[in-house]
Amino acid sequence: MYRPQIKVLDCTIRDGGLINNHDFSDEFVRQAYRALSKSGIDYMELGYRNSKELFPTKDFGAWKYCDDDKIREIIDGIESNLKISIMVDAHRVREQAFAPADESPVDPIRVATYVKDIDKAIDLAKRTKGLGYETAVNIMAISRENEFALIEALDQLAETDVDVVNVVDSYGALYCEQIEYLVKLYREHLPGKEIGIHAHNNQQLAFSNTIEAIIHNANYLDASLFGIGRGPGNCCLELLIGFLKNPKFNLSPILKFIQDHMLPLRQEIEWGYILPYMVTGILNEHPRAAIAYRDSDDRDKYAEFYERLLEGIE
Amino acid sequence: MYRPQIKVLDCTIRDGGLINNHDFSDEFVRQAYRALSKSGIDYMELGYRNSKELFPTKDFGAWKYCDDDKIREIIDGIESNLKISIMVDAHRVREQAFAPADESPVDPIRVATYVKDIDKAIDLAKRTKGLGYETAVNIMAISRENEFALIEALDQLAETDVDVVNVVDSYGALYCEQIEYLVKLYREHLPGKEIGIHAHNNQQLAFSNTIEAIIHNANYLDASLFGIGRGPGNCCLELLIGFLKNPKFNLSPILKFIQDHMLPLRQEIEWGYILPYMVTGILNEHPRAAIAYRDSDDRDKYAEFYERLLEGIE
Repeated sequence: MYRPQIKVLDCTIRDGGLINNHDFSDEFVRQAYRALSKSGIDYMELGYRNSKELFPTKDFGAWKYCDDDKIREIIDGIESNLKISIMVDAHRVREQAFAPADESPVDPIRVATYVKDIDKAIDLAKRTKGLGYETAVNIMAISRENEFALIEALDQLAETDVDVVNVVDSYGALYCEQIEYLVKLYREHLPGKEIGIHAHNNQQLAFSNTIEAIIHNANYLDASLFGIGRGPGNCCLELLIGFLKNPKFNLSPILKFIQDHMLPLRQEIEWGYILPYMVTGILNEHPRAAIAYRDSDDRDKYAEFYERLLEGIE
Repeated sequence: MYRPQIKVLDCTIRDGGLINNHDFSDEFVRQAYRALSKSGIDYMELGYRNSKELFPTKDFGAWKYCDDDKIREIIDGIESNLKISIMVDAHRVREQAFAPADESPVDPIRVATYVKDIDKAIDLAKRTKGLGYETAVNIMAISRENEFALIEALDQLAETDVDVVNVVDSYGALYCEQIEYLVKLYREHLPGKEIGIHAHNNQQLAFSNTIEAIIHNANYLDASLFGIGRGPGNCCLELLIGFLKNPKFNLSPILKFIQDHMLPLRQEIEWGYILPYMVTGILNEHPRAAIAYRDSDDRDKYAEFYERLLEGIE
């Protein structure tokens, strides 16, 4: 489907960082930046801008903080039109520093929030927008939200100058008809704003839900290399680029990066179609119980995990 | 989505058999039969009824032939409402023997065909229907068929007493809008017949395409345990049962069978999200080039495989 307004954001380092404490080697990030640049992707999200007071640097890699200088070091000397995105958690804001956009390698900044923290998110978004950044808001965990509260949050966002609001299926619980409903709801309540989609792959629906969002005019699409991301991961970038017909995209550098870098990484850390995450997806639960289960000796006792969740034990 | 007319067919042994020359152990098939019976699945497809003249028994396991006596041996003593399905290739018909349905443990028989062999398929279907079998026809490879010829085949089928016609995405090339189009096309040209769906998972769309088919009133749904099937495999049965709301289904025996039997099997033979099959899916090609590539030393050179296919070399 060719629509020139469509923008693709690769969240490999940001969402993949949730598995490895944001501790990718510089070489890995640099090669990913190079491959994504060659493949014509629009945005690459590198991680979070977190407070070092809240998250001590001894416990995390560079992409927990995404310092401007660190980003400059990575992208230095690589020809690219790729824009660098970072994410900020609205509910974890301390004194993060943001330079004015024209002095930073970053643009856009995306604010992640729960419905309950929407006022904090809007404050933060106003601040980044005021500094000149393209600004997006991701409202998380909406598959468990009260719709009245969600709509109130959307109506508040409609009053701001935020550029993009993303439909986020945090629990990988939604299927196509629900995605259609939500994208239409967001469009109705956010006139003039772009709508995006960030899907999780618990039920192998991340790619198809992204297609569904495209059909209903979401233009900002999140995906990651080989689907990397916490637990089941995200929409696979290679599938999305194989689907989009915009001639600016090129699949080969993506496939090359996967064979050279993602396959070896997959031997070290796990993500993908793993049944405890499938179970939390179909039950519309946060993946935390599945994460804990995969760390235990019972990691492959799927039936038992399912029954424990049904009974509310996990 | 609860619709009492929906029937689920597990094709684990039949489609999985394409990876291992139909050579599953009796114990594996028996345990699968037991698990599927407990989980309330409607049909279990065990394999093909092939001519032993065309396919010598030294080269294949029992499920290449599906003799009635062999089936009786497997299901003996297990309490079950599960019906046993077998498949027959229209273009490979020699002198296969079919007992009258009331003397056989089999029902239904599904005839697989290409559009060009539709007359052979109809002859065969009339024969099995005449013997009292519930009969289905699967027209394969339709993503590469001329629509005029496909419609002609459907119109011929409309004149028969075949019970079910399945939309088959042999190459895993189709996405939701195409599935919607085809299911509606089949329904329009096959009044009074049930429509089914058999999806392949090259692009992680098998489950979502099955949901799409359900939405447009396909009632016969194929799936397999842990998605097993040649190459990328099929719609995962565990996902489908997690989605369907019919209380007759029970997910636990399925999860238990996967943990006990499918995980070990996956260590011996490969299927699933493997990039050469993703590439044949997005390019709407038969998976044979990907199968050959996975057997070569270049098995993980995805970018090269993609470029060779684009250039028509593979």
